[in-house]
Amino acid sequence: MVQLGFESCMILGLDIGGANTKAASSDGSFTDMVYLPLWKNAQLGEVLGRFADLSPEAVAAVMTGELADCFSDKSAGIQSITATVIDTFSCPIYFWGINGFQWKDPLELAAANWSASAALLGREVGDCIFADMGSTTTDLIPIKGGPLAAKTDYQRLGRGELVYMGLLRTSIGALLSAARIRGDTVPLSPEFFAITADAYLTLGDLSPENYACDTPDGASKSREASLRRLARAVCADLEEIGEAGAIAIAEQVRDHQFRVVVNAIERQAERHKLSRVVAAGIGEQVISGAARFLGMEITLLSEKYGQRISDIFPAYAVARLLEASSIV
Amino acid sequence: MVQLGFESCMILGLDIGGANTKAASSDGSFTDMVYLPLWKNAQLGEVLGRFADLSPEAVAAVMTGELADCFSDKSAGIQSITATVIDTFSCPIYFWGINGFQWKDPLELAAANWSASAALLGREVGDCIFADMGSTTTDLIPIKGGPLAAKTDYQRLGRGELVYMGLLRTSIGALLSAARIRGDTVPLSPEFFAITADAYLTLGDLSPENYACDTPDGASKSREASLRRLARAVCADLEEIGEAGAIAIAEQVRDHQFRVVVNAIERQAERHKLSRVVAAGIGEQVISGAARFLGMEITLLSEKYGQRISDIFPAYAVARLLEASSIV
Repeated sequence: MVQLGFESCMILGLDIGGANTKAASSDGSFTDMVYLPLWKNAQLGEVLGRFADLSPEAVAAVMTGELADCFSDKSAGIQSITATVIDTFSCPIYFWGINGFQWKDPLELAAANWSASAALLGREVGDCIFADMGSTTTDLIPIKGGPLAAKTDYQRLGRGELVYMGLLRTSIGALLSAARIRGDTVPLSPEFFAITADAYLTLGDLSPENYACDTPDGASKSREASLRRLARAVCADLEEIGEAGAIAIAEQVRDHQFRVVVNAIERQAERHKLSRVVAAGIGEQVISGAARFLGMEITLLSEKYGQRISDIFPAYAVARLLEASSIV
Repeated sequence: MVQLGFESCMILGLDIGGANTKAASSDGSFTDMVYLPLWKNAQLGEVLGRFADLSPEAVAAVMTGELADCFSDKSAGIQSITATVIDTFSCPIYFWGINGFQWKDPLELAAANWSASAALLGREVGDCIFADMGSTTTDLIPIKGGPLAAKTDYQRLGRGELVYMGLLRTSIGALLSAARIRGDTVPLSPEFFAITADAYLTLGDLSPENYACDTPDGASKSREASLRRLARAVCADLEEIGEAGAIAIAEQVRDHQFRVVVNAIERQAERHKLSRVVAAGIGEQVISGAARFLGMEITLLSEKYGQRISDIFPAYAVARLLEASSIV
């Protein structure tokens, strides 16, 4: 790789998700995350244009956004996203698929972001469960002499390597079937009334600035507004169940999500005889708590690479993989 | 009541829900249902204006739409909805609350539509479980010498008198935790990818014309599009799980919803020692099947009052209650 000064030698990694687009340079000096809900026809090209202004030497990209339901199927999503990236950058662009930068079928690009993270960690950390909890989903990738996860989201769901549940955007009505409030067991509405971010915010585990997605009702990210959304999930005004009732719901959401993560890690640990967890993503602390609960060895990605990089790890990983490859 | 010819003697009943607004005349000659999602800021006044053109002598109204999350709380929702009704009609208007047309606190109007239905049925049918399955929710109202249900949605949820699940709009990811496909157990995504209407449509239980709500992805109401949405619920393209896989999901949604209805009816029957079910709403056949499964006596509202009236029963009931009252 020819070094031509900072701007021109930058390798930029991109992770284009359905809800967030993340970017990082291979040296880790630049990282960014933009909330960009593709299913609401967000302007991907506009955001990528800002990254193009950094004049990277090369771009390495992974995606998961092809599943967004604005696309009729994954192929249509991959075609649209790759076309937008290619139109925006004038430098060479390399897309990482589940089998690496070399691929034949564009479908190999579908949901391959975990694969880039796992490939880098396999080299730098060795055997472990790589557990990355994001806003929307949690990846649990067994790495034993290389990543062992299945190739598609569908297969990973079935094997528990993809747990469709995250720190921010998950509807609590889909996570928790019922809440116990003042001795009553009250089923939750399946409507999109409140999300995990509301639970963590009211419990003081999440700041309003880190509530990095839209609120379900379009109201504010204040504690009061989150309490109202939690109450609405049991068809109640906040006055009806009181702040204690809404906080009980939040506690039960946190507790349930924790137990789901514990069970999911345990399943992979038993299946692959792995005793170490590398925790990543904005839900790193949840992963780490669950691994500690199971008595497993823990590496925090935020300690190894710094918090900024942990938060957008697939973007960083794919940039590093391109840098280390013989391609550029 | 002074009879002044058809138009001027009409008593119009309204049932203003969060997703649908329904209308009926007390003689049953006029019925209508309009998909009007209040949380998307649908124009309630505009639709009501069309009903005002019928020049009713009086309007009787019930609501559930105050829970829509465009309103900060139920009081705000009730105030907004009542103001819109009052602004639109020039005739006398009577709102039915959980204790009848006489009420002191506007909060008595919250979610009182089941109460109007149950009050009429208590008079005309006698002791029974009134089970009304709509697009979004299912009401199970024990009637024994009058309606016995709790007064608020929150309390009814806890007592199983409100099951927040309907024939059309319920996200299948909130209903079913996992689907069995080709021997694998695959968790469903909690995203709003597919709804119960997609399941019933692909199974031939629902026609595209009766798919009376928006599709989750904005695509068409064709069988093919519904199959794609069902596949997306397990993060798959239709090609990945095949039509058989998508139909398996639909079958399991139908089966699970049926069992939830069975259990819900059984709970009320045991608690109140009731042996008869009056089935209503667009999901009348699901209710009726569940009651038959439990060996209970069944009355179909559609047979007693006709299908049109069964579909919009609370609107009809509140019109009848006003007609029978000493008010007009």
